Amino acid sequence: MPCNCEVKVLDGRSQHLNGCGFNSALQNGTQNDENIHSGHHPHRKVYDEEETEGEDVSVDRNLVRYPDGTVRLRNPNIELMDQDILYHLALGSGSHDLVEMFGDVKFVCMGGTPKRMQEFAFTIMQEIGHKLPCGTTLHDISQFSYRYSMYKVGPVLSISHGMGIPSVGILLHEVIKLMYHARVQDPVFFRIGTCGGIGYEGGTVVISDEAVDGALKNALELTVLGKTVQRPAKLDRRLARELKSLTDPEDPYDTIIGKTMCTYDFYEGQGRLDGAFCDFTENDKMEYLESIHKSGVVNIEMESLSFAALTHHAGIKAAVICVTLLDRLKGDQVLAPKEVLDEWQTRPTKLVCRHIKRYLQMKGRLSLDGHGSIAVKSPRRFKLVQQESETYD
Amino acid sequence: MPCNCEVKVLDGRSQHLNGCGFNSALQNGTQNDENIHSGHHPHRKVYDEEETEGEDVSVDRNLVRYPDGTVRLRNPNIELMDQDILYHLALGSGSHDLVEMFGDVKFVCMGGTPKRMQEFAFTIMQEIGHKLPCGTTLHDISQFSYRYSMYKVGPVLSISHGMGIPSVGILLHEVIKLMYHARVQDPVFFRIGTCGGIGYEGGTVVISDEAVDGALKNALELTVLGKTVQRPAKLDRRLARELKSLTDPEDPYDTIIGKTMCTYDFYEGQGRLDGAFCDFTENDKMEYLESIHKSGVVNIEMESLSFAALTHHAGIKAAVICVTLLDRLKGDQVLAPKEVLDEWQTRPTKLVCRHIKRYLQMKGRLSLDGHGSIAVKSPRRFKLVQQESETYD
Repeated sequence: MPCNCEVKVLDGRSQHLNGCGFNSALQNGTQNDENIHSGHHPHRKVYDEEETEGEDVSVDRNLVRYPDGTVRLRNPNIELMDQDILYHLALGSGSHDLVEMFGDVKFVCMGGTPKRMQEFAFTIMQEIGHKLPCGTTLHDISQFSYRYSMYKVGPVLSISHGMGIPSVGILLHEVIKLMYHARVQDPVFFRIGTCGGIGYEGGTVVISDEAVDGALKNALELTVLGKTVQRPAKLDRRLARELKSLTDPEDPYDTIIGKTMCTYDFYEGQGRLDGAFCDFTENDKMEYLESIHKSGVVNIEMESLSFAALTHHAGIKAAVICVTLLDRLKGDQVLAPKEVLDEWQTRPTKLVCRHIKRYLQMKGRLSLDGHGSIAVKSPRRFKLVQQESETYD
Repeated sequence: MPCNCEVKVLDGRSQHLNGCGFNSALQNGTQNDENIHSGHHPHRKVYDEEETEGEDVSVDRNLVRYPDGTVRLRNPNIELMDQDILYHLALGSGSHDLVEMFGDVKFVCMGGTPKRMQEFAFTIMQEIGHKLPCGTTLHDISQFSYRYSMYKVGPVLSISHGMGIPSVGILLHEVIKLMYHARVQDPVFFRIGTCGGIGYEGGTVVISDEAVDGALKNALELTVLGKTVQRPAKLDRRLARELKSLTDPEDPYDTIIGKTMCTYDFYEGQGRLDGAFCDFTENDKMEYLESIHKSGVVNIEMESLSFAALTHHAGIKAAVICVTLLDRLKGDQVLAPKEVLDEWQTRPTKLVCRHIKRYLQMKGRLSLDGHGSIAVKSPRRFKLVQQESETYD
């Protein structure tokens, strides 16, 4: 039964006003509902939370989605703006046709450095058999921002987020707005990163089930107009379990699910003895690390709190998958050789690739024909031609 | 009169033990003392503070300098380590001869993007007439960190710090340790950046005299081993005034000294209406911005709190010089054209260049002979030769 609130057509989307946001698609059962819990009243459908823990942590789907499943912003100002400049992405809603450019996106993968995310883009291109037109290659879409790098491989965006909560926070605001402008339906966000393990050897893959700050609080604290605001730092537990289920029993390393601590500082903030400053002893440090270990913290990094809090607030399914570079119960400095570290960093990538492949396979969108802009018929002859060509002056 | 504490020679530096750190050079009057306030007892010399405000904000010089004026770390662990890897700089004390590479550094200039700091390096090279050997050019020293970019032009380092407090914080820990390993004497740090003005037009240059957080607190709050620690976010007021005195009366823009607010978020944290989320009204925002304006805040950015707090804690003279990109009392989005923004961003650079030039001039180290690795005798003929050369196939 449709609701009786006033309906306005805005920006091509029919929209229920008065904060109703009644979603007829939901009622018609046409919506992918894997994360929707039905309430008694269609206005109270709750999204993205399996375990409701008494607190108000669930997000009303109508706040964060239009009836057609596209991303709705929890900010009434944007749709009234003449143009919205995504300043740190070098994109704008008035200057770029964002629907044309990004409308087909399903997965947004983020990680620290431009280099790692460029490599991820080429890896996922190979994995999903994405083809480029002959004579083309991937190009950094946000090149002129000089801030973040962004690559697009069909339904996958690969974006660098820099280091720390503010850096990933700016990016998330703009990428969530990008999802809105591009009318992306139910995107899924991944952070692929590195971390320190707490009681886990270097090379262990950690899928976060929630993020906590340095005082073990499961929320991002923001100062907004001088007042402290808390945003629950929740991640999608079902997605975490799905990822875990995609591990290969042959993998020569562990993949675990656990609580991730996220700090504002790498040295003192993570109890390291090797920063420019240190006012505590080895004993103090070990006592602290042991105590957070007992509280269920399995790794520490610097972005998950913002990543979890902002995606959760936007009703976007998200997961954080990091590889440990060392066990912090055993030391502070990363000492594994570069080749080993490089191999470790492919591990979270592999898991995300498997997830994306499986999704595209289910949708019949996976191509195994080729990838990139060069069609290779015979790898042996391909290699020969390359070598021959190189020898000509 | 020398103190009687035990003296140990460690790492080539004679060092007074028992936390005494007695500085004989100070007593002999051979030390540059422009920022040292004499106490009655040589052990209580206080550094870097003109206004002592009752709180414990001053830093004992003996905590942060060896007798020869080189940087001393407030961390007893580092000098006991076999090697110290500056992980995010791609440098190490065991792998690199850091004294040889960086021992001549006097100024460390930091800014957000690799591109801006590469441009700054070439600018300062020209300004101070720094010559490179023929056939060489500047090279990103931290290229293999994929995190920060670092250029060295004689006594000047130019380093990108990314966005936000954690990103600049990691860098500062490692650069302060670099100063220690390289035995740099009394370095001076600058942050050259962009900001939003509060009551000041785009293009205004702001020299910060202190940094405050989003709740107007003049300290960086850190969580260390689960407990909150506060670090005063003080900047060197004398250096700020020196910089102000170097402004050109002909400059077609204002250069002011004032209080800088530093936030953890660009959108909600700075009261912007145009983020992915916004729960406040235009009126709420204006009320807040007017109130911080009344408290003396003249600009907002995202790094000064950490920059001020960590340099102050290390006893390093530091200044933050930013250009406003807009007046936040008038809007949220930066709308000035690229050419205008590019010109604005040269303004803080110019001031820092003047300061560095004046210092080198006073030391007789300024060369006006040339710069770069190409010696030009006649600019006209130089251009002609370039053009001729280009036309040959």
